Amino acid sequence: MEEINKKSYLPYYLQIKDILKERIMNKVYLPNMLIPSENELCDEFHVTRATIRNALYELKKEGLIQTEKGKGSKVSPPKIEQSLLKFYSIGKELKNFGENAASYTLSKGRIKGTMDIANKLEIAEGTEVFEIVRIRFYDEEPLILETAYIPVSLTADLLEQDLEQAFIYDLLENKYGLKIIKAKETIEPKIANEYEAKHLRLGEYVPVFYTERITLTYAQKPIEFRNSVIRGDKFKFYTELY
Amino acid sequence: MEEINKKSYLPYYLQIKDILKERIMNKVYLPNMLIPSENELCDEFHVTRATIRNALYELKKEGLIQTEKGKGSKVSPPKIEQSLLKFYSIGKELKNFGENAASYTLSKGRIKGTMDIANKLEIAEGTEVFEIVRIRFYDEEPLILETAYIPVSLTADLLEQDLEQAFIYDLLENKYGLKIIKAKETIEPKIANEYEAKHLRLGEYVPVFYTERITLTYAQKPIEFRNSVIRGDKFKFYTELY
Repeated sequence: MEEINKKSYLPYYLQIKDILKERIMNKVYLPNMLIPSENELCDEFHVTRATIRNALYELKKEGLIQTEKGKGSKVSPPKIEQSLLKFYSIGKELKNFGENAASYTLSKGRIKGTMDIANKLEIAEGTEVFEIVRIRFYDEEPLILETAYIPVSLTADLLEQDLEQAFIYDLLENKYGLKIIKAKETIEPKIANEYEAKHLRLGEYVPVFYTERITLTYAQKPIEFRNSVIRGDKFKFYTELY
Repeated sequence: MEEINKKSYLPYYLQIKDILKERIMNKVYLPNMLIPSENELCDEFHVTRATIRNALYELKKEGLIQTEKGKGSKVSPPKIEQSLLKFYSIGKELKNFGENAASYTLSKGRIKGTMDIANKLEIAEGTEVFEIVRIRFYDEEPLILETAYIPVSLTADLLEQDLEQAFIYDLLENKYGLKIIKAKETIEPKIANEYEAKHLRLGEYVPVFYTERITLTYAQKPIEFRNSVIRGDKFKFYTELY
């Protein structure tokens, strides 16, 4: 049985968190099952309830457990690993998962490209672009908040397309003949702001990925700039480095 | 001049945040320079001080500005872009940057590999591994908290090496003849816990990257497992997708 190391430089609650995390990782505690109660954990580790609560709070912050009032804590389903090894569209991949994927368009319209958007798309500031804000759902849970900017000149009737069923990348290629050859992407950690938290149904101070992507067509011409807020409790990125 | 769009679905403070962010991105406000005061921003956008404060708080959460008491807010230096396109060692790359990179060993010792570490290194649970905890500094600021696990059997006198000057990957290759061929890495967003925040000198609720890496030698044999807590206000990851 694992025990707290009283000589360690790590505080007790973090040691307990690590032990519990390991049990989750190694399926000692199974996904969607309850973990032992606070009382049981106090008995096992010979610590106060406050220490156990701090440990559980850490697990919660990492998205490993979900606490339900009066019921205890349940192991979260494992995160979806999104590979960075090839061009990906999480929306598309969720759809391949099964029937429970859906896309909801929060807003769509034309705006004048701001300095930042214009720089990213290599167009003049003020040039018209479509702005499409969508939420990706799986199993009725919102997972990703995605905002795409596409020059109006290249895709004049884009907003009339069925954006909830079709994928923008498919439309660009098949309807507008704009073959995508690569994307440049940056990945940052952030805390969801109020607006993002509302649409992704998150509490306060939940860590998310913030990605920015510029998609390029032949001749390295940017055809889309998008930013995505991706739930950190649901996704992790995976890569291989050589 | 940019203005608030009163018909937008975005609250004012987030619109102002976006406008100020754009000015930072486009070097209208330069790194390490003060941005206009709260009063000046109230006048420019015709909003209350509370709205400006919320906008500045969002910029701060994203690491774009730093507020100094009584002095106002300063634009943070741009984030370091760490490419995911090849095997990287941030410590090594910081050293290439210049003289101001340093490594500090927080603790080093032998432990019995826990179930998780043993699984990652493909060894039996309880097998001895070195545990090396280091902090990477640049310009006297702590940037990364890194914990490495390496089987004792392959690198018997590793702890006697100068871990503050040499790089573990270099030691593995040059001293122990363990040529590294690739690494598998996962990337997650998280909020620094108390221990991490202390060592990285962060406030409460600061978003960081949490990465786990398994480094493989010939025959796909794991030689090191490491996890890193990387400051999100200092780094972003960059990749290209095909």
